[in-house]
Amino acid sequence: MKGGKEMQDYAAQWGKRYHFDNIYNPMLKLSTVDLFQAGEIIAGDGYEISAHEQICAEISYVVSGCCDFYTDDQVFRAKQGDIHVISAGRRHKIVAGENDNLRMAYIGFCLRPQAWGKDLESFYRNPPAQLQNDRHYSRTLFEQLLGEIYAAQPYATEAMDACITQILIQVWRIFEHGGETENRRIVEEARIDRMIGHTVFKALRYIDNHISTIGHISEVAEALRYNPSYLSRVFREKTGKTLSRYIQDKKIESGKAFIREGMSVGETAARLGYASSQSFCKMFTKSEGCSPTAYLEREGGADAQAEKDDI
Amino acid sequence: MKGGKEMQDYAAQWGKRYHFDNIYNPMLKLSTVDLFQAGEIIAGDGYEISAHEQICAEISYVVSGCCDFYTDDQVFRAKQGDIHVISAGRRHKIVAGENDNLRMAYIGFCLRPQAWGKDLESFYRNPPAQLQNDRHYSRTLFEQLLGEIYAAQPYATEAMDACITQILIQVWRIFEHGGETENRRIVEEARIDRMIGHTVFKALRYIDNHISTIGHISEVAEALRYNPSYLSRVFREKTGKTLSRYIQDKKIESGKAFIREGMSVGETAARLGYASSQSFCKMFTKSEGCSPTAYLEREGGADAQAEKDDI
Repeated sequence: MKGGKEMQDYAAQWGKRYHFDNIYNPMLKLSTVDLFQAGEIIAGDGYEISAHEQICAEISYVVSGCCDFYTDDQVFRAKQGDIHVISAGRRHKIVAGENDNLRMAYIGFCLRPQAWGKDLESFYRNPPAQLQNDRHYSRTLFEQLLGEIYAAQPYATEAMDACITQILIQVWRIFEHGGETENRRIVEEARIDRMIGHTVFKALRYIDNHISTIGHISEVAEALRYNPSYLSRVFREKTGKTLSRYIQDKKIESGKAFIREGMSVGETAARLGYASSQSFCKMFTKSEGCSPTAYLEREGGADAQAEKDDI
Repeated sequence: MKGGKEMQDYAAQWGKRYHFDNIYNPMLKLSTVDLFQAGEIIAGDGYEISAHEQICAEISYVVSGCCDFYTDDQVFRAKQGDIHVISAGRRHKIVAGENDNLRMAYIGFCLRPQAWGKDLESFYRNPPAQLQNDRHYSRTLFEQLLGEIYAAQPYATEAMDACITQILIQVWRIFEHGGETENRRIVEEARIDRMIGHTVFKALRYIDNHISTIGHISEVAEALRYNPSYLSRVFREKTGKTLSRYIQDKKIESGKAFIREGMSVGETAARLGYASSQSFCKMFTKSEGCSPTAYLEREGGADAQAEKDDI
């Protein structure tokens, strides 16, 4: 399958089925695991990764598309963001989706003895072999890991070690405490509530994290479960700005950053939740004394395109 | 400053200056560092974190807003995404921006002896004390670290340890090899080029990573530096789909995921680079046999709001 001729034969034989496998076989002794294999697969139109017995534990993460995981005699249909865990000794195969092609990242590993507490150890020795979904954090961690493998920069081994530690912890948490989001939020809020000035701190932090999606100031009070008039009062006392003025200023600052990075005025307006480009431009001009386009010209064109880490 | 009365006094004394400090003082012995302090600061309108001598090395990351870092007799103006590194024994102060308030995350630490190679060790023992910018990856790493501190879930210490290892590596890389993006891309491509079928693999991967911003198929060939007609031919031979059909299908799949997550049709269209909601709806209906709104009704409403990790 190296040249055009062989690819054609392949296509003739399999119809549209295709399969790419970028495998890294390091046999690395890391601080918490022996790493057997890591990599990513892209496969389409029902391609089958045929049945094999696992020589080590494996975590698979569906980056996009869908597939079916067969484990012994069970089958699990997986979609974007799903995680599948299987232990050494079990038999499995994977069949890529028919329409939306599969992109999957995975690691094969053995836990090092005594590197982990018994909760996590017993999970990976005998995982439930079913799916959990974690679209955001697990994806980031696998992106980081594959980035380290591909780029092979200095200290790549130490960084891979750290990524894998985080993946093992995160996947265990997702399976053991599936609905952790709410618990996590409560613990987090309780910790912040002990600090001085926490009400305004939480509001500033919330606004900074959600500036794109905040439509009205009442959303801030609602999200943080404060009385709106109480929040408005302490916010103004503490910062000297009203909540609505503060949010508007922050939206303009975000808009300026997006525009400097080369985003169009239309997309910037949509991203920041303005009803139209016109209403964004009007607000921008009122605040900055010039239109977004004039602002960009003044700033000397777009910044260098920000680095986009590929998984 | 605990109640309304004290806040008013504070505001009267300082004008609009404000300052919140969420400090975590663990004195943790981790695998690669002793961690003295970690936390985040929000401060506005010229608030000054007064001059003090560093008892340990410190990395500060500007999450948003701006500030001035004073180190001994030098001053560095920092903006969103900037990283500042200072070693033990040096004197510094920080002054928050006047208009756009500062949000900063930081760690104070000492390297453990023999935990690192000498390159990284000598960097943190005597860092250049100036700024570098890294808007994306460092932000993610600090978000992960603060998330672990706030949420205090099982294995939080191991996860913090892994985050800090990655932060120390990433910050060192940014300072030592500032313009690493291009080098990294070249190494990455060279590694992928050794696999069978790499041309189509790279195209599939590129499309998956950039589906939102791809406007025309020629962009894929251009980004990957392939001859467009060569790429179109091998892509079709290998996948059974033309490049343009494949991109269109992927955009519709992404659009379906955005809509299921509760994004509006207008924002989905803008995010995927369609000229208008109308052109997105037309394409969607042609492909799916129903409008985006009808699709959402059929799927039974939005998925649970995806977890949004706060820094």
